[in-house]
Amino acid sequence: MNNVTPEAPELRKDPVTGRWVIIARERAKRPQQISGISLVKHSHSNDFCPFCPGHENETPPEVLSYRSPNTQKDSEGWWVRVVPNKYPALISSTPCKKSAHGIYDRMNGYGVHEVLIESPHHCHTFAELPTTQIQEILWAMRDRTVELRKLPNIKYVLIFKNWGSEAGASIEHPHSQIIGLPVVPMRVMDELSGASKYFEFKERCVFCDIIQQELSDKTRIVAENDSFLAYMPFASRFPYESCIIPKEHTSYYVDVTKNQVNDLSTIIKDLFSLYKQSLGNIPYNFMFHTAPLSKSETNNYYHWHIEVIPKLSTVAGFEWGSGFHINVVAPEDAAKHLCEAKDAKTALDD
Amino acid sequence: MNNVTPEAPELRKDPVTGRWVIIARERAKRPQQISGISLVKHSHSNDFCPFCPGHENETPPEVLSYRSPNTQKDSEGWWVRVVPNKYPALISSTPCKKSAHGIYDRMNGYGVHEVLIESPHHCHTFAELPTTQIQEILWAMRDRTVELRKLPNIKYVLIFKNWGSEAGASIEHPHSQIIGLPVVPMRVMDELSGASKYFEFKERCVFCDIIQQELSDKTRIVAENDSFLAYMPFASRFPYESCIIPKEHTSYYVDVTKNQVNDLSTIIKDLFSLYKQSLGNIPYNFMFHTAPLSKSETNNYYHWHIEVIPKLSTVAGFEWGSGFHINVVAPEDAAKHLCEAKDAKTALDD
Repeated sequence: MNNVTPEAPELRKDPVTGRWVIIARERAKRPQQISGISLVKHSHSNDFCPFCPGHENETPPEVLSYRSPNTQKDSEGWWVRVVPNKYPALISSTPCKKSAHGIYDRMNGYGVHEVLIESPHHCHTFAELPTTQIQEILWAMRDRTVELRKLPNIKYVLIFKNWGSEAGASIEHPHSQIIGLPVVPMRVMDELSGASKYFEFKERCVFCDIIQQELSDKTRIVAENDSFLAYMPFASRFPYESCIIPKEHTSYYVDVTKNQVNDLSTIIKDLFSLYKQSLGNIPYNFMFHTAPLSKSETNNYYHWHIEVIPKLSTVAGFEWGSGFHINVVAPEDAAKHLCEAKDAKTALDD
Repeated sequence: MNNVTPEAPELRKDPVTGRWVIIARERAKRPQQISGISLVKHSHSNDFCPFCPGHENETPPEVLSYRSPNTQKDSEGWWVRVVPNKYPALISSTPCKKSAHGIYDRMNGYGVHEVLIESPHHCHTFAELPTTQIQEILWAMRDRTVELRKLPNIKYVLIFKNWGSEAGASIEHPHSQIIGLPVVPMRVMDELSGASKYFEFKERCVFCDIIQQELSDKTRIVAENDSFLAYMPFASRFPYESCIIPKEHTSYYVDVTKNQVNDLSTIIKDLFSLYKQSLGNIPYNFMFHTAPLSKSETNNYYHWHIEVIPKLSTVAGFEWGSGFHINVVAPEDAAKHLCEAKDAKTALDD
């Protein structure tokens, strides 16, 4: 059809909504093999972990690590390690080239797909990791964003973490993913568009107004410190959905300060400790929403934040197709439930 | 906070994106009871089905049925039956009233939520039902839409079917759901907005152009007859996602003609027979996208269709939060796989 090889990943644009998707055929798999079973790739059995120390040669060579002095690249001695994804959804070795096929738009699957191994320990969650280690993870996320934004044609760096196989994690060892994209994701575009309209009308950042409202209502807040607020959004789509947001207006995660990283590590640990105490070791998706790399005017109206979506319901239902969500747990009830765990913990500690 | 009782369903608007969600607290359930387990309500054990003939008193009184002459309402003798949902996400007995809470917008959970019982038989799928029965289902969907659009403040009628517990079906017996909404769902809004822009630019319906392109490419079509086309969208978000669309430009499903209903029943049976032959009895979501009830100008640019999303992957992943999808099965490969089943069937029949 054009000069895209069948195996290479490809970006395609929906002609109606303008949404881009990645078509990343899995070369080794025939469609027959995926019918009725999970599409998640469990490339290693449970007793062998490619992300554990000593198995560094199981991953592509590291692009970043924080490690002890006098230890070698791609050997033990690291506490945070970033490697290219072995099964990338996008590749940087292809040109960033758009083409038309009739009314359809496509693009070579240009981009970067990396894995951030968050700890040498196989089982540690955000609730168990020391805040100092969470800080190291947050710095590595920032460092890679700084690096990827230098690449030509990278318009957005998407940082996310799937925890638990129900939420899409194919490997148990705690890790995040960093994707450098030649396009801005739809949900971020929706937020940019809404926030921009609000700013035009009110000359204020809608996220700053949300923070004020949440601080005044107090019914949806689950954790707070000097720099950050963790709350359950007023119009939560999912039970126990939460949002972590910097109190000070900032558009870009890369502009995070040292004090903010310290406070962010604390609020992440606090939030996930509450989840653990209230609900157990639940699967979840955790993702950064930050302004696109090149739009300096977003400084006025966009406010970076982290979305956390616990995967408590076994189904997605019709929401995919309609964009219409039914949430059976009100955010106020969810926040109250989490805060009860906090109060119980405090009472125990006293 | 306002005059909404805590138990009543409520609509809430996301202040950034404008997306409405339904917060429908489940009265009988404490948050503790949903932790770590499915949120799907299995209100009846497998051996008792509230939708089977003889159990008509297990549902609220029927609002529509197609039944044999001389049989009583809410008794046996029906072949299609529509009843109010026993656990409605929205209720019509509340006023359709918007209110502000600071920067947030909310609305009473006004609306209608009905269940369409598709057959007296407990296990029949679209692949097994006679096309005449599928026609009856399609007419009942239309009849209820005609009825619900008469209600004040109903802006959209959403018709969908969840098949299989993995796709959100809480009761095994084949059924669809009909929701009358006081707002238009986000995904439909996105399509309306994109289709409207395309029309402004090209003075053509984007869906009509897609049909032409699909008929010319031939690589993504899985079924076709005089009135309808079933194809796998160019920018499919999910493996084996498909779309059924009338070849003739029509904005509203309620304007469907008798010949079209006949052809629609055939293409539905064809499509789901192919799914079954290729992939087995897979769980899926099936939903109508039609123009909103009140916007007559959409006649020019919006084209109703049905979206089918098989639930083959066990996870939603980070797509919820980013709107960015990675699809590991190209639609051309999926279409080829389904058509191989058709060819094998034809060879067998010969």
